[in-house]
Amino acid sequence: MPLQFWFEFASPYSYPAAMRIEAIAQVRHVDFEWNAFLLGPIFKAQGWNDSPFNIYPAKGRYMWRDLERICEALALPFQRPSLFPRNGTLAARIVTRFNRAAWMPRFVKAVYHANFVDDRDIGDAAVIADCLERVGIDCEPVISMATDVSSKTRFRAQIKRAVEQNIFGAPSFVSNGELFWGNDRLEQAVLWHAVHGEIC
Amino acid sequence: MPLQFWFEFASPYSYPAAMRIEAIAQVRHVDFEWNAFLLGPIFKAQGWNDSPFNIYPAKGRYMWRDLERICEALALPFQRPSLFPRNGTLAARIVTRFNRAAWMPRFVKAVYHANFVDDRDIGDAAVIADCLERVGIDCEPVISMATDVSSKTRFRAQIKRAVEQNIFGAPSFVSNGELFWGNDRLEQAVLWHAVHGEIC
Repeated sequence: MPLQFWFEFASPYSYPAAMRIEAIAQVRHVDFEWNAFLLGPIFKAQGWNDSPFNIYPAKGRYMWRDLERICEALALPFQRPSLFPRNGTLAARIVTRFNRAAWMPRFVKAVYHANFVDDRDIGDAAVIADCLERVGIDCEPVISMATDVSSKTRFRAQIKRAVEQNIFGAPSFVSNGELFWGNDRLEQAVLWHAVHGEIC
Repeated sequence: MPLQFWFEFASPYSYPAAMRIEAIAQVRHVDFEWNAFLLGPIFKAQGWNDSPFNIYPAKGRYMWRDLERICEALALPFQRPSLFPRNGTLAARIVTRFNRAAWMPRFVKAVYHANFVDDRDIGDAAVIADCLERVGIDCEPVISMATDVSSKTRFRAQIKRAVEQNIFGAPSFVSNGELFWGNDRLEQAVLWHAVHGEIC
């Protein structure tokens, strides 16, 4: 079973994790899967109707500064989005529907770049279409397939799977039931999977 | 100005930070100050009447497992307290009142050991008295001075100082207005202070 990488397109700390995971997994020879999901339903179940970074301003101010420092240390471009959180539903449905496509990881990174570098509204289908075109994909059939009834059902099941695995934030990593939360835990999760992941 | 280390005796992630900070600061030749405070009033201002680790069970379950892994990696003894969070007020008042005493850091570590290794109730004055005795201090005058009116006033000012610096969790580190949150940020905060801390 591969290491599960769970990310949400609106999540600030998911951005550096998504940009780094391929290189870090490769060094450890660890297989991983990209799992897009939404925090909205999970937060709602906890009584939050917005991101905790908006509900708790001191925490939010800290997060933006912390992320700025993280990106600077990694030489990752970063611009604070003028709107937060943006709606990552369409992008997440595409990732879930086309999970085995070779272009999917490039699409994921294009969407993060749109949100956290170019300050574009990833909730707008035209922006997502542009992200698809940038990775060389004809956007119309992809968007149409990702928004059909069976894709929506599949995406709901994906969010349920996150909840069942006790995921409460993003990014998260799951290795044989062992949960790791946060960009800070990426290296540890990959190493854990390299050591324990093949046992089950 | 020294690096400010803010910790709360009930806070699980403050435990490894308190046990590690002296060695890490010494390597970088960084001066730091021990600042005990309480999260209760800060959480209350956010509408929480309990630790978020109790209010949000998935987060709490994760935290205990994460802390177990952290302590294992550091070879730090750890036993999950049977009561959480415990009341660290008396211990924090002692630290604030006797902040320049040579025995204070040893007392801090004795209290964390009582809470997170020996599962003793640090809200009980007899346990705190025992922690003082263990570091060779006559407990009666210390407890009496730490609970007099001027000490209580000083401790309230200490909590206000935390709030004014936008501290919202523990452990936290402040270097010339630059805030770092979490045991995960200890190394970064010390390095930041070594580079930027002498400027102001």
